[in-house]
Amino acid sequence: MIIIVRSALPGPELDGIREFVERHGLRTHVSHGTDRTVIGCVGDARAIDPHAVRTLPGVEQVIPIRKPYRLASADFVASRTLVSLGDARGTVVGGEELVIAAGPCSVEGREMLLETAAAVHASGARMLRGGAFKPRTSPWVFQGMGEEALELLAEARAATGLPVVTEVMDPRQVELVASHADVLQIGARNMQNYALLAEVGRVRRPVLLKRGLSATVSELLLAAEHVMAQGNRDVILCERGIRTYETATRNTLDVGAVAVLKLETHLPVIVDPSHAAGRADLVAPLAFAAIAAGADGLIVEVHPRPHEARSDGDQSLTLGAFDALMRDVARFAAAAGRTLGAPSPSATARSRPVSAEDAARDAALVA
Amino acid sequence: MIIIVRSALPGPELDGIREFVERHGLRTHVSHGTDRTVIGCVGDARAIDPHAVRTLPGVEQVIPIRKPYRLASADFVASRTLVSLGDARGTVVGGEELVIAAGPCSVEGREMLLETAAAVHASGARMLRGGAFKPRTSPWVFQGMGEEALELLAEARAATGLPVVTEVMDPRQVELVASHADVLQIGARNMQNYALLAEVGRVRRPVLLKRGLSATVSELLLAAEHVMAQGNRDVILCERGIRTYETATRNTLDVGAVAVLKLETHLPVIVDPSHAAGRADLVAPLAFAAIAAGADGLIVEVHPRPHEARSDGDQSLTLGAFDALMRDVARFAAAAGRTLGAPSPSATARSRPVSAEDAARDAALVA
Amino acid sequence: MIIIVRSALPGPELDGIREFVERHGLRTHVSHGTDRTVIGCVGDARAIDPHAVRTLPGVEQVIPIRKPYRLASADFVASRTLVSLGDARGTVVGGEELVIAAGPCSVEGREMLLETAAAVHASGARMLRGGAFKPRTSPWVFQGMGEEALELLAEARAATGLPVVTEVMDPRQVELVASHADVLQIGARNMQNYALLAEVGRVRRPVLLKRGLSATVSELLLAAEHVMAQGNRDVILCERGIRTYETATRNTLDVGAVAVLKLETHLPVIVDPSHAAGRADLVAPLAFAAIAAGADGLIVEVHPRPHEARSDGDQSLTLGAFDALMRDVARFAAAAGRTLGAPSPSATARSRPVSAEDAARDAALVA
Amino acid sequence: MIIIVRSALPGPELDGIREFVERHGLRTHVSHGTDRTVIGCVGDARAIDPHAVRTLPGVEQVIPIRKPYRLASADFVASRTLVSLGDARGTVVGGEELVIAAGPCSVEGREMLLETAAAVHASGARMLRGGAFKPRTSPWVFQGMGEEALELLAEARAATGLPVVTEVMDPRQVELVASHADVLQIGARNMQNYALLAEVGRVRRPVLLKRGLSATVSELLLAAEHVMAQGNRDVILCERGIRTYETATRNTLDVGAVAVLKLETHLPVIVDPSHAAGRADLVAPLAFAAIAAGADGLIVEVHPRPHEARSDGDQSLTLGAFDALMRDVARFAAAAGRTLGAPSPSATARSRPVSAEDAARDAALVA
Repeated sequence: MIIIVRSALPGPELDGIREFVERHGLRTHVSHGTDRTVIGCVGDARAIDPHAVRTLPGVEQVIPIRKPYRLASADFVASRTLVSLGDARGTVVGGEELVIAAGPCSVEGREMLLETAAAVHASGARMLRGGAFKPRTSPWVFQGMGEEALELLAEARAATGLPVVTEVMDPRQVELVASHADVLQIGARNMQNYALLAEVGRVRRPVLLKRGLSATVSELLLAAEHVMAQGNRDVILCERGIRTYETATRNTLDVGAVAVLKLETHLPVIVDPSHAAGRADLVAPLAFAAIAAGADGLIVEVHPRPHEARSDGDQSLTLGAFDALMRDVARFAAAAGRTLGAPSPSATARSRPVSAEDAARDAALVA
Repeated sequence: MIIIVRSALPGPELDGIREFVERHGLRTHVSHGTDRTVIGCVGDARAIDPHAVRTLPGVEQVIPIRKPYRLASADFVASRTLVSLGDARGTVVGGEELVIAAGPCSVEGREMLLETAAAVHASGARMLRGGAFKPRTSPWVFQGMGEEALELLAEARAATGLPVVTEVMDPRQVELVASHADVLQIGARNMQNYALLAEVGRVRRPVLLKRGLSATVSELLLAAEHVMAQGNRDVILCERGIRTYETATRNTLDVGAVAVLKLETHLPVIVDPSHAAGRADLVAPLAFAAIAAGADGLIVEVHPRPHEARSDGDQSLTLGAFDALMRDVARFAAAAGRTLGAPSPSATARSRPVSAEDAARDAALVA
Repeated sequence: MIIIVRSALPGPELDGIREFVERHGLRTHVSHGTDRTVIGCVGDARAIDPHAVRTLPGVEQVIPIRKPYRLASADFVASRTLVSLGDARGTVVGGEELVIAAGPCSVEGREMLLETAAAVHASGARMLRGGAFKPRTSPWVFQGMGEEALELLAEARAATGLPVVTEVMDPRQVELVASHADVLQIGARNMQNYALLAEVGRVRRPVLLKRGLSATVSELLLAAEHVMAQGNRDVILCERGIRTYETATRNTLDVGAVAVLKLETHLPVIVDPSHAAGRADLVAPLAFAAIAAGADGLIVEVHPRPHEARSDGDQSLTLGAFDALMRDVARFAAAAGRTLGAPSPSATARSRPVSAEDAARDAALVA
Repeated sequence: MIIIVRSALPGPELDGIREFVERHGLRTHVSHGTDRTVIGCVGDARAIDPHAVRTLPGVEQVIPIRKPYRLASADFVASRTLVSLGDARGTVVGGEELVIAAGPCSVEGREMLLETAAAVHASGARMLRGGAFKPRTSPWVFQGMGEEALELLAEARAATGLPVVTEVMDPRQVELVASHADVLQIGARNMQNYALLAEVGRVRRPVLLKRGLSATVSELLLAAEHVMAQGNRDVILCERGIRTYETATRNTLDVGAVAVLKLETHLPVIVDPSHAAGRADLVAPLAFAAIAAGADGLIVEVHPRPHEARSDGDQSLTLGAFDALMRDVARFAAAAGRTLGAPSPSATARSRPVSAEDAARDAALVA
């Protein structure tokens, strides 16, 4: 910690600051400059709240040096974390192979889920996403099918072998969700819901932690730290766009954060291009950019009939568009020195659009 | 709802859109412009997800007309909501009298809490704030004294008569917190924690709902709507600064949001100048600005010895600075046509700074 | 300047950094911590580009200590700057009296300008604003009446005695504008147009410098520094709202910046509530908040018939609404310990709305 | 244009609004909903200022339908614009081949410029960048070598055949700069400097228009419109990161804007990963992401000895790192279905780092 004070600070006040710091077990070291005097503090500064130091008379600035996260920091772990999804195939997130999760925003019924799961599996997805409990800005709209959806997700896993990721919003439901899902998703709105983070930190399930709407990279890592501090080290970070002044896209995809995270942490990082784009026709370029920036995977919203979707229809890809996306992503994966799971060999029938509306939409997207 | 499509859209596609909308019980109405065709939709558009409409071929833009909140909207309630705090004095938030809540960021012990409570009461505060469960960005720092703090708060209430507001972070603790506190605070990080909002919506305690770090005014009102939809209509909104690119203040106090809220909703609106400023020396001007913009009250961090505070010391006022603030706020209250509770007549001894450090600090602040 | 390096940095690299800094005439001082080593640099660090230092191997962070502005800094000037407007009345900005500038967004004709000038003068304004050269986002809309408007402004000054402020957008027009106007306005879009700043720095006219749409407080002061470095020390700063994610107001008025500027600089600071609000019905609360936060004045858009305005009609006050605003502002001025110019005694007839539309609008605003 | 009013609006007020609009040559069309009444306006709404309409009594919202830009809009031009750089090689921006511009932030001398030009040419760059007039936040630091730098740039062009791009900041210098440079750069700070935009719109030189620090995509296109309205249609847009709350990168690269621009306009779009990153070690991933999102090229800061750079040293690549970047970019270009100019065959000696510092730095970057 470095403390900056006015150079004209009277001796007793300067001594007061030094004594305050030394009382907490640190050593201090003063250098006098023309305009400012600098007090260097050596030792474990975590014992002192820098905010408290700033209240001392004469203090102009307090600069912490050490980063506030430890478990999530790349400084303290020799190798990158590989998160195993626990499926028969042995899928891991964070390795050479990119992992693509896909599925509907919300689970809306058995048929649509199984149809989607089979299709995204056939196209090469390695994880199935689907919302059971939905955080919705308004209390007056569809909030998800709840426990019934969890059972349908488990059925879809049985049918395809795909591990399932779904959001948990309430600490009281962590056990329930963990009993059906393979990966627990913490949504952007709950990134700093510490009761929830602690609870998922106590179960043995990987956690997919989405970056908050206006969270910094540092805050995202500290949220991961809240999970890891409880014992669960299997955290997958997810960049999904941040809130800025720009409204041309739903959120602003921060590919720079992906690149920074690859340096700052050993945890794997995936990207959600669907929420960043907010529009189906922008999902592909954002997905490509994410892979190019170094992401370890993607999570993509896919719906067999987007115009019937009960949430996020406008940013959902059709089954056909997702299949095309996967073929294109493969090229960028190769350019990035990564591999992409091949389409399932047993999946003979490729999924395709089932309505005139979607066929027209696909034509536009794929063109 | 208004749907905008290309003017060159083929008849069948235009009909498809109209049929889709009409299937949901709305009537449609088409006007053809030079470049664009506009489909007006009459009826309760809440039955349709505008995102789904945007997926239909040819649709360029979907514009909802109705506001998404109802219970919180000033359109549907004849008079402003007055929230009673349940104290013997009969304090209400939202009336002519401004209500000032004050107290430490965290409850750190019995003595400091009782000292602060007595002092802020003497200076004219009408509510006591104090954190028991603290949401902290890092898991490695002080997280609050928990239940013990709740008991101390109740003791401070008994000593001063001040109703108590404290944060609840976990739906499993709502009952516990409600059994000690008079007002339940939802912190900025939890503004969209819907499980928690629903839970505080079911108890009979007023809720102090802080605006999320980057929440829009509309999202704040929808968060209130989540609480109100469960039956609890006593919601006090709190503007506490938003996250912007500017780092000269901890957050950017959005006084425009206060003014907009006074038009959009019947709920009372207070302001937290401490978190907006992040520095004790900026709390007063922000407090004055808040009152001038129409706020119904303030919530201010006060600590007898800020440099010993375990959280937020740098933005906490000393007891003396808070007393000075109250005298100044009274002038702005009068300018705004509001009243401010007089200092407690029975409180003969005014609190004052207890250390040389704080005396120096006060001198600077009050000067 | 403080340089932070890894504690494990090999001796030669550490020496390389020290030598690099010392070559520029600074002394260095090393303290070794557990994780990091800190190199304190004493001397005039302005000789070194901190960005260059950051490129040296092993450097993790470079922290400048000295503030980058000098002439604008409150540290180096004993008293606050008072900017004289040069009128017969001897108006100064930055003194005890608040100075209110008012007038139309654009000068649209002789009659409307003279009518507005007389009215705002009668209501107590001390400066007349009016755009001659208008920076418009689109090239296809009204760009101002140009030189003709300058002549009309001079005529309005002759009629009322009010000094005139108008925007200059082109360094080639500074001389022309300065020959008609009393104060040269630099608009938000041009805050970092250094050719223009240098040019207005060379004339003997006060400069009203608006904060850029997303400029920090520090960048605003550095823009003032560009003007002052050329010799012109009469700079009035203007906060006019910043760009954030929030769309409920046109911009987000940053009252915290006003409070910070009053500490950081000796230059006067005024506020433009009209551009911050973007809506006439929010101008008054934002104006009050600005005064409460410590602003030295306001600049307000006023139009006799806002619905006929060729720009910014929706945020312009009618003459009647401005008159009401001034009476209300007077109360907040008093609360802030400031005075406000009394309405002109010779102005017997108060201006009032001239159409049914504006009467209705005023009724709503004033109510 | 669509106007939304309260459904309870009295007939005369509704008629007043309709008459106002019809007076400007539009037809109106009213549909009555439950809560709101919608007035559709058919005709060329550009004749009316929507802000003026919003001032009419009863109007709640005014929604423009037509986009505000015409010349820059993809709607009105059949094919994409190819901007020819005028070199012997016939380089065009916007075609199948990606165009990479590279060079120092500032021209700092003859030797460093010629060395850099030869090296980036050898690595496959197709344009040479270099600042002669530098917009600097502070007036107290190096502002560029001015006209001398222009002559050096012309010499470097003669030596390598690379067309030259350099910034122009002052309308009075457009002619001078155009007499030496092949492409005129408008910097981010001047994106809305309309006097300057008009001036470069009148010369026959392509314009490289950088997005303002917090400009929307729409505002960027309107800035291009200002140039094009004067007759110069050769505008290259440049995304360079926007200002957000995040400080881990200097700016937030908005790859979504690149994808949106490819849909909205026929103009070519390139990306500046150097200013977005602000750190040399993040330039490569951002460059890859830009190409993946669909950019037509890059503009990259390169310096033979970054720690000696007089500006932006920390984000400049060494010659060796740039050479490595080009090889990596080629793979992403192929994945995106684009080509990248091969390294110059005549350039036998590859440039390489010239100091131990830079060798160490390269090792880190390239690893």
